[in-house]
Amino acid sequence: MTIFPKGARKKAGLVPGTLVQTAEKKTEKTTITILDYDRESFRERVAAGPEECRAFRDTPAVTWINVEGLHELEVTRQMGEIFQIHPLVLEDILHTDQRPKMEDYEDYVYVVLKLLMYDEQKEGILADQISLILGKNFVLTFEEKERGILEQVRKRIREGRGRLRGRGADYLFYSLLDVIVDSYFVVLEHMGEDVEKLEEDVMNGPQPNVLRRIFDARTNMLVVRRAVWPLRDLTNILVREEIPLIGQEVDVYLRDVYDHAVQIIETVEVSRDMVQNMADMYLSVVNNRMNEVMKILTVIATIFIPLTFLASIYGMNFKHMPELEWPWAYFAVLGVMAALGFSMLGYFRWKKWF
Amino acid sequence: MTIFPKGARKKAGLVPGTLVQTAEKKTEKTTITILDYDRESFRERVAAGPEECRAFRDTPAVTWINVEGLHELEVTRQMGEIFQIHPLVLEDILHTDQRPKMEDYEDYVYVVLKLLMYDEQKEGILADQISLILGKNFVLTFEEKERGILEQVRKRIREGRGRLRGRGADYLFYSLLDVIVDSYFVVLEHMGEDVEKLEEDVMNGPQPNVLRRIFDARTNMLVVRRAVWPLRDLTNILVREEIPLIGQEVDVYLRDVYDHAVQIIETVEVSRDMVQNMADMYLSVVNNRMNEVMKILTVIATIFIPLTFLASIYGMNFKHMPELEWPWAYFAVLGVMAALGFSMLGYFRWKKWF
Amino acid sequence: MTIFPKGARKKAGLVPGTLVQTAEKKTEKTTITILDYDRESFRERVAAGPEECRAFRDTPAVTWINVEGLHELEVTRQMGEIFQIHPLVLEDILHTDQRPKMEDYEDYVYVVLKLLMYDEQKEGILADQISLILGKNFVLTFEEKERGILEQVRKRIREGRGRLRGRGADYLFYSLLDVIVDSYFVVLEHMGEDVEKLEEDVMNGPQPNVLRRIFDARTNMLVVRRAVWPLRDLTNILVREEIPLIGQEVDVYLRDVYDHAVQIIETVEVSRDMVQNMADMYLSVVNNRMNEVMKILTVIATIFIPLTFLASIYGMNFKHMPELEWPWAYFAVLGVMAALGFSMLGYFRWKKWF
Amino acid sequence: MTIFPKGARKKAGLVPGTLVQTAEKKTEKTTITILDYDRESFRERVAAGPEECRAFRDTPAVTWINVEGLHELEVTRQMGEIFQIHPLVLEDILHTDQRPKMEDYEDYVYVVLKLLMYDEQKEGILADQISLILGKNFVLTFEEKERGILEQVRKRIREGRGRLRGRGADYLFYSLLDVIVDSYFVVLEHMGEDVEKLEEDVMNGPQPNVLRRIFDARTNMLVVRRAVWPLRDLTNILVREEIPLIGQEVDVYLRDVYDHAVQIIETVEVSRDMVQNMADMYLSVVNNRMNEVMKILTVIATIFIPLTFLASIYGMNFKHMPELEWPWAYFAVLGVMAALGFSMLGYFRWKKWF
Amino acid sequence: MTIFPKGARKKAGLVPGTLVQTAEKKTEKTTITILDYDRESFRERVAAGPEECRAFRDTPAVTWINVEGLHELEVTRQMGEIFQIHPLVLEDILHTDQRPKMEDYEDYVYVVLKLLMYDEQKEGILADQISLILGKNFVLTFEEKERGILEQVRKRIREGRGRLRGRGADYLFYSLLDVIVDSYFVVLEHMGEDVEKLEEDVMNGPQPNVLRRIFDARTNMLVVRRAVWPLRDLTNILVREEIPLIGQEVDVYLRDVYDHAVQIIETVEVSRDMVQNMADMYLSVVNNRMNEVMKILTVIATIFIPLTFLASIYGMNFKHMPELEWPWAYFAVLGVMAALGFSMLGYFRWKKWF
Repeated sequence: MTIFPKGARKKAGLVPGTLVQTAEKKTEKTTITILDYDRESFRERVAAGPEECRAFRDTPAVTWINVEGLHELEVTRQMGEIFQIHPLVLEDILHTDQRPKMEDYEDYVYVVLKLLMYDEQKEGILADQISLILGKNFVLTFEEKERGILEQVRKRIREGRGRLRGRGADYLFYSLLDVIVDSYFVVLEHMGEDVEKLEEDVMNGPQPNVLRRIFDARTNMLVVRRAVWPLRDLTNILVREEIPLIGQEVDVYLRDVYDHAVQIIETVEVSRDMVQNMADMYLSVVNNRMNEVMKILTVIATIFIPLTFLASIYGMNFKHMPELEWPWAYFAVLGVMAALGFSMLGYFRWKKWF
Repeated sequence: MTIFPKGARKKAGLVPGTLVQTAEKKTEKTTITILDYDRESFRERVAAGPEECRAFRDTPAVTWINVEGLHELEVTRQMGEIFQIHPLVLEDILHTDQRPKMEDYEDYVYVVLKLLMYDEQKEGILADQISLILGKNFVLTFEEKERGILEQVRKRIREGRGRLRGRGADYLFYSLLDVIVDSYFVVLEHMGEDVEKLEEDVMNGPQPNVLRRIFDARTNMLVVRRAVWPLRDLTNILVREEIPLIGQEVDVYLRDVYDHAVQIIETVEVSRDMVQNMADMYLSVVNNRMNEVMKILTVIATIFIPLTFLASIYGMNFKHMPELEWPWAYFAVLGVMAALGFSMLGYFRWKKWF
Repeated sequence: MTIFPKGARKKAGLVPGTLVQTAEKKTEKTTITILDYDRESFRERVAAGPEECRAFRDTPAVTWINVEGLHELEVTRQMGEIFQIHPLVLEDILHTDQRPKMEDYEDYVYVVLKLLMYDEQKEGILADQISLILGKNFVLTFEEKERGILEQVRKRIREGRGRLRGRGADYLFYSLLDVIVDSYFVVLEHMGEDVEKLEEDVMNGPQPNVLRRIFDARTNMLVVRRAVWPLRDLTNILVREEIPLIGQEVDVYLRDVYDHAVQIIETVEVSRDMVQNMADMYLSVVNNRMNEVMKILTVIATIFIPLTFLASIYGMNFKHMPELEWPWAYFAVLGVMAALGFSMLGYFRWKKWF
Repeated sequence: MTIFPKGARKKAGLVPGTLVQTAEKKTEKTTITILDYDRESFRERVAAGPEECRAFRDTPAVTWINVEGLHELEVTRQMGEIFQIHPLVLEDILHTDQRPKMEDYEDYVYVVLKLLMYDEQKEGILADQISLILGKNFVLTFEEKERGILEQVRKRIREGRGRLRGRGADYLFYSLLDVIVDSYFVVLEHMGEDVEKLEEDVMNGPQPNVLRRIFDARTNMLVVRRAVWPLRDLTNILVREEIPLIGQEVDVYLRDVYDHAVQIIETVEVSRDMVQNMADMYLSVVNNRMNEVMKILTVIATIFIPLTFLASIYGMNFKHMPELEWPWAYFAVLGVMAALGFSMLGYFRWKKWF
Repeated sequence: MTIFPKGARKKAGLVPGTLVQTAEKKTEKTTITILDYDRESFRERVAAGPEECRAFRDTPAVTWINVEGLHELEVTRQMGEIFQIHPLVLEDILHTDQRPKMEDYEDYVYVVLKLLMYDEQKEGILADQISLILGKNFVLTFEEKERGILEQVRKRIREGRGRLRGRGADYLFYSLLDVIVDSYFVVLEHMGEDVEKLEEDVMNGPQPNVLRRIFDARTNMLVVRRAVWPLRDLTNILVREEIPLIGQEVDVYLRDVYDHAVQIIETVEVSRDMVQNMADMYLSVVNNRMNEVMKILTVIATIFIPLTFLASIYGMNFKHMPELEWPWAYFAVLGVMAALGFSMLGYFRWKKWF
């Protein structure tokens, strides 16, 4: 559950802007990857330390520096110092419980998002935090662990596919937002498959783990919802507000990201209704099944109880019970019992009680 | 269920604007139909390929080109190239999970909608995607499969009925929106009939498939709701904003479409409440019925259990049981049993337990 | 149920503005009544046909023309032609599934509303559609059937009561809106009485038709709600926007209508909560009652089952059962049974199980 | 229940502004009290009739006229005539189903509110209507019955406490609003005590009247909510809008009333959630208790039923039942029964069924 | 429960601005602590009485005066007099049921907040009220009891850590808001741990106190929610509006507080959904468990009831029961019983009834 804040007690009372490690250590080593490209040239290298990035800060080519792993505070601190990032932003980068948001610091735009992945084994959602900083001709990204999502963009740059190589840092920034938001669709697709399987199982009647799976599906939706709702406002601001670092020709692309955010939110809301609907349905199905069982069993019991009473009457040991002497009495009683039993059965049937 | 995105994994990581076939192949062959008309003249033809459309692009007459079938990417790509459509629009045309929306690209207006049809066999909703592009004097439509809905407009043009022939592309555009939105009313009418049947069945007591039908009705409403909600904003923008391609005299007609959208949304919302109401009612009815059964059966059982106990006392084989010798004992016990049984029955009756 | 659209299939694909009869035929004959009045004079007549109205169009006196019955299309078409009404408005007048709305066509203001009446026999709501057109010095009204509501205004004009005779068409227009909205209060009062009766019955315990009545009360509220919600926006626009046809001194009266609309909406919303509350309460009461019955019955059964077992032990026919020979054994067993029974009874009592 | 309108049928069709008595007669006699004061002087008298008020209309001192009792129409009509109040306002004063609202008529400001009181006997809410009219140097108040709330202000004026005597009519107006809104806090405090008692009782297990009290608490909240929600908008308008009759130095006090209104609304909303929470809790507690009872009782029954079956086998009267002859058979059967009984008991225990 | 107002009856009818002690006496003695600092100097002292503060009012250095304990009205009254605080503000400081709010009185800004603490013993939330007044170069704080939260800021000032010493009163004001809001995260973290424990217990099946804990978790959330919702508006106003007392360089820090407020609200909302989800889950689990028990027990009973009936037939004492004489009859009956029993068992199994 990534709903509640962690490490709040650890952080409480510290000077604002103090960097504390609250991020889980998800990767062994912090890796800094530098990509520097323009239409013609392309360089890629793994930096030994943050200092190596300083040289790329003011090159005219677009520079993308990716920091993987957030558990070494010093790396982030140095990056912040080189690119003149506000201490509160650095704090947010390291504090991985961040709510997705967008802040315009004039010299750079800071965006923090969630990277969602579907964990097929646990049928759960993994959520990493990813921070993007768009500067004049650079983009900095800070991720908890490389999950192969940013790699898609890196590959396009390397191979010179798409429009990336010929465009500025803002288009790179958009491309990164785009692959991140696209990854939500993948998560939704997985969740949709779970929900469809679940729907089938619900209809097939009570099964031991259906309740658990409905509960998990709901929790998953709460997690996705939480990551996605702020995305709408965030992308809306990126589109509507005049941000000097983002060119107008990129706006139409960002509008596309905005549309996707809206679509994801609606899908999550509709699927919440779906699962709620399913949960109601399941409870009804279980209840119905239970009722059916109880009714048939009770009918059987109810038929035999009066019959047993009749038998027990003639099992009494009174001296003077004239019927006991009659030769045809036993068969008469058997007949009465059969008649009584069948007429009760018929009555219950007629009343449609089973 | 058309709630969750499909093909997201296939698309993930592709360059934005890449055309991928995620649309289901709903028609055998992609057909391009060209209608070219003004007040006097009228031409209709099925084009062999997209290239044939190029000639109609700049004619002063109104041209309506309809592409049926979205599984041949190349057709859409060529159409986009001829009419200079933005790659993101082409991507949206092919990606049939699109949320209804409206985008103004100055040279053209792009609208994507859902075509809803009621499938009488399955009592379910079919949803196709339809894209409309309104240009200076042309309208392009891209549909997954011809469902006879656009045919209504085509017929009016052919026969010269209504105001269509004497008006511009914007009126054609409105007419297409109008028949699409009208088709939602047909779907709602069908759903209303289902709901009315359902209401009757709910009142008549428990039936095996009522729950399933309530569940389906709810799912249908989610599907319609999803298609319709964005329609309000979309038509509102068309009416309020100054779009140069849409003349003022068409605005009053678009306002009518907007009113219809609002009415459809309200109907869907009210019918959701209706079905929720019905589901609550049904559960109560089932529960009541079950309670009634259980109560009567339990009453019977409860009356006979003490009587059987009484009988079993006199079935004991003790040597010294003075009552057994009394001549009238048997009849006395029978009398006591009858008295006990009837007084219990009376008590339960008096307590209104059955 | 007037929730879902009717006749959509009939209308689908028709040219917008085509007049189709979807209105139910609620009255035998279409009647056109003309009232023409100013401070001094007053004329009233039943017109033979629409043509007769033409003469009144441009008189300086206020003219109120009421058309009762909407099943004769031709009458409406001719009225539209004489008073130069937009075809879409005529279509809306005839299409009685209309959502209440207000449209300003500069030369005239079009308002469509629902007339609600409470049907005491069925404890249901009847809804007619009524259209009002306010022109320079005339008001046209189109109603499905005369229900005596507009008659109140007619009487006031005839008798010269109130301020009507000395004022313009806008005040007449307001007076009509006012009596229509007042009629909603009458419906609410009836519904309130039903709900109060229902509340009493709910508290008095389970009764066969309570569920049905709760269901009906909810459906009624959905119907009223649907008619009333749009009324707020509609009257708000009439008050706030500068409509040349409506004088400033009438605005304060229209604000009163607006206040009434808000009050009606709130009453409906609160009463929805009331009925929901009541439904929850009823289910709890029924459940409680059932639990009570089940518990007492089960207690009885549970006490006698072990006792019967004891008796059945001494009913076994083994040769060697020493107790059977003991002279006081029978009475001892009876004593044990009584002790066991009463101590179980006491235990259950002590546990407050019944 | 003061939710639904009363007297609507009586009023329907009357000319707007007609004064009708719909107010309940809550006081024997209509009393008019006049207070006339400035910093130095102070006069208080009970007027014989409305005419007596005319003299005070134009005095420079602040005049507060309170009318207690709304069942004598003539009094209100004359007051309206003397102070030139719009007929629609007079109608609203007498129509005690009014929704709280505020209207600015330039010469005077009209505010209608609910006076809420907690009736300790019935644990219910009493609601009177109170109308305030703020004129240039007078305040008129119309209340259904004196409840001691306005008396607080009267006392302050008499004794010259607070800032009242040295200030204008607007401050008097504020002071009246303030004591009225403060009286809501008293009601909330009472309701809070009820809810706390209720919470305790809910936790202590099922009790006969808990359901009824939850239902009443909910109804009370609906009543308070209805009176309070409009108060927010009303006070907000008083604060934000430039009303010439209200001086700027009174605005900061009105903002305080606004804050109180917001706080009351939030308290009501939170307490609705509390009571809902409690109702859910109570149903669970009742259900749990029932389940517990049913389980233990069923366990007992289930253990003895197979044992009784065993005993009844050896109660059969077949000639050839070899076991019956065996000398130790009876004790063996008793042993088997004990073993069976205890092992079933142990199994149920182990399964944690009770 | 701190939901409902306390002491309203005590306060009702008092002159607005009258200081009344409604605050609980949470500390023995009212303590006034004065901190006076600039970049170089630093003084800290405990004042003997309010009068001592007067000297610090106009020093150019930043002065922070903290009043701990609100039960001595006189202290607050004198502080108000020295720093010229509006009587309504003083009333709000002492009235500890205050809704969090922010008021700009030009000379000073008044903010009232809740201090939330988690009480580990009771698993409940403690809420104190804290008032902050930001003046030109002073900050006044009024707290009910020192909880160690403001001490964090005091320590930073003493030790000269962070940016506090070199900045103005507005930064001190921000720092106080920041530690207060950070303390909410600590509360949320505790609540999150409770909820996680609860979730585990819910999944492990019915336990006696789970319901109570769910109820408590919900109540806690209502308390936190109530304290936090107004915080959003409050901080938003601080950020957006031009408040002369707050410098622009502090705005970016206040935006951070705003972000935290939004994040806290979202966390509370999501966790409400979580707990609701859990409560539904728990009821289903309990219900399922109960159903399972009832079914197995009923199956056992149902199998033995017909068998006992069979046995009781041959326990009847009729003279003429031919079967009784047959030598193999007893074994045949035993066989029939076994066959019947097992086939019923098999049937129930096959029907998946247990």
